[in-house]
Amino acid sequence: MTAPGAGTTLGDLPIRDNLRGRSPYGAPQLTVPVQLNTNENPHPPTRALVDDVAESVREAASVLHRYPDRDAVALRQDLASYLTKQTGVYVTPDNVWAANGSNEILQQLMQAFGGPGRTALGFVPSYSMHPIISAGTQTAWLDLTRRPDFTLDVDAAVAVLAEQKPDVVFVTSPNNPTGHSLSLDDLRRIARAATGIVIVDEAYAEFSSAPSALELVSEFPARLVVSRTMSKAFAFAGGRLGYLVASPAVVDALLLVRLPYHLSVVTQAAARAALRHADDTLGSVNELALQRDRVSAALTELGFDVVPSDANFLLFGRFEDAPRTWQHYLDRGVLIRDVGIDGYLRVTIGLVNENDRFLAVSSELVQEIS
Amino acid sequence: MTAPGAGTTLGDLPIRDNLRGRSPYGAPQLTVPVQLNTNENPHPPTRALVDDVAESVREAASVLHRYPDRDAVALRQDLASYLTKQTGVYVTPDNVWAANGSNEILQQLMQAFGGPGRTALGFVPSYSMHPIISAGTQTAWLDLTRRPDFTLDVDAAVAVLAEQKPDVVFVTSPNNPTGHSLSLDDLRRIARAATGIVIVDEAYAEFSSAPSALELVSEFPARLVVSRTMSKAFAFAGGRLGYLVASPAVVDALLLVRLPYHLSVVTQAAARAALRHADDTLGSVNELALQRDRVSAALTELGFDVVPSDANFLLFGRFEDAPRTWQHYLDRGVLIRDVGIDGYLRVTIGLVNENDRFLAVSSELVQEIS
Repeated sequence: MTAPGAGTTLGDLPIRDNLRGRSPYGAPQLTVPVQLNTNENPHPPTRALVDDVAESVREAASVLHRYPDRDAVALRQDLASYLTKQTGVYVTPDNVWAANGSNEILQQLMQAFGGPGRTALGFVPSYSMHPIISAGTQTAWLDLTRRPDFTLDVDAAVAVLAEQKPDVVFVTSPNNPTGHSLSLDDLRRIARAATGIVIVDEAYAEFSSAPSALELVSEFPARLVVSRTMSKAFAFAGGRLGYLVASPAVVDALLLVRLPYHLSVVTQAAARAALRHADDTLGSVNELALQRDRVSAALTELGFDVVPSDANFLLFGRFEDAPRTWQHYLDRGVLIRDVGIDGYLRVTIGLVNENDRFLAVSSELVQEIS
Repeated sequence: MTAPGAGTTLGDLPIRDNLRGRSPYGAPQLTVPVQLNTNENPHPPTRALVDDVAESVREAASVLHRYPDRDAVALRQDLASYLTKQTGVYVTPDNVWAANGSNEILQQLMQAFGGPGRTALGFVPSYSMHPIISAGTQTAWLDLTRRPDFTLDVDAAVAVLAEQKPDVVFVTSPNNPTGHSLSLDDLRRIARAATGIVIVDEAYAEFSSAPSALELVSEFPARLVVSRTMSKAFAFAGGRLGYLVASPAVVDALLLVRLPYHLSVVTQAAARAALRHADDTLGSVNELALQRDRVSAALTELGFDVVPSDANFLLFGRFEDAPRTWQHYLDRGVLIRDVGIDGYLRVTIGLVNENDRFLAVSSELVQEIS
């Protein structure tokens, strides 16, 4: 039997005109031996963490029939404690807000500070969800292209902010997919030049040696927001927990747009369990940074152009036909990412043997080309 | 130490003008002996269900470091099987979409089919999130007021649809907070008169003896969407799992607006576990319907005006000052809901002893008034 209504197509529906002809976002979800495409921490959770998650969920499940704490107070307390410890910047629960992944955090920010008649600006190439979430909230998108080496020209950024006065500015540090971090002084210059909200997307902050923008929140309380995620260094991509740090007033603003009860008791319990194991989990971060430097050096040695990275991925090239090279890796069981930058591909740093396999395929590639 | 940025207020922020002066949605989350305010199933999960949730989450947690299945295929399969069994209407996974609560389902629908320059219409009083989610997606809100007895005048509904041609119509069956269901013939008349999408919100369908609108999906594949939730009869409010049934093309449309990886591995695993215990959980539905009828009869006996209900709550009155009466119940440890309808309050049907306590307080109230 076919699905009820299967004869109807997308074109038959009264969808918004700006959605017609579009394709859904997303990296291909393929089952391959070596998965280096979505910047996850490759280390599986420890047995202790898995047990803690399961037992915490068991306890929380006794009230599954009741709505969760709408404001996730205990989780925000734990996130504040973690941040204070990890960054050395004093953060209270009133400074923290959490949602189902940083995408939902960004969407809520755009609902409050962007939207129809407003503009958002990013420094491209950068995280592809920034323009997508802007479009999803009907916010007009502006961008400034980075230098040919993908670094940000802060003078040019300051000039474009003064000229365009966007309502929201996205600054990504380290930047995905290029890997550069910004200094606090550069972030200060951007925040001073901005007239709207400045979102510093620190999804990869734990991998970076640059200081966190968290300490700028008290300098720019009506403007600066730092978004973070447990999906990357924290090895919790499957748990979907993004958060932000900002002045309490920004959190108040998000209470006006968040869907009530957006975070389940299960998510709150699992994230709190994962935070209890932060020291263990983040123990792999140094090792991944060392692996990144090893892979970067090896790729350079092979003759590739490798963009310096402060995160757990590398953008490398140059390729005449990046999509074809992407397929070359995939055919050999290595899934990396075509982020749509002409001549470049992005590889996530994996476990030692995964990186070895990636480098072996890279080496073959060089031999085939030359 | 105070929170960083604590001196900044909401008024200092560059938020959208339409958010200025607004208060966050939400029923008060108070700890009281008898909680009859948010239409949850009062029966806590069984030990078997809690164990299954915990063990399913334990298994899923082994891949917490990886992103979840973005399209939640296995969960949609389980929901389709459940729906086919519960309603007798054949439903495939391609007909089903799931999100973090039906609020997120509705928000995604509004992003695809509503938005700036478009309109949504509801039959008020109804679920208060419909206009809030419309506002959150910048969709203009229109409404038609129900008859004084809160039933829907379908002739008037058909006329207003022909005249206003809203892009989205919300029909709630049973309607929250009044409790009436609509017949399939009435829903057909509305669907025929509509030019946009018709969302039949069946959050309380399992409590109702009226046939589900699911069987109308194949009649109106380019128009009719049925939204449902595991928060009510399913006793899974804490798990946050809403879903919809529609033609596969509608699901395709939502893939264009959903945030990627919106449903965590933990949520997917917990919801699948809860679905395995559907027979057990829904076993309480008949008992709750009997309790509803008992409470309704007792309130009527006491002289209250009780609106006939097909769901797990009752709207009752009339009160000169409903907020003061709400406080009267609260002072006696019974939390019910002031839904903002002049002269009326809403009570959720609870466990027998909770209903007894509610009726005892109601009886005292009558004695004090007379």
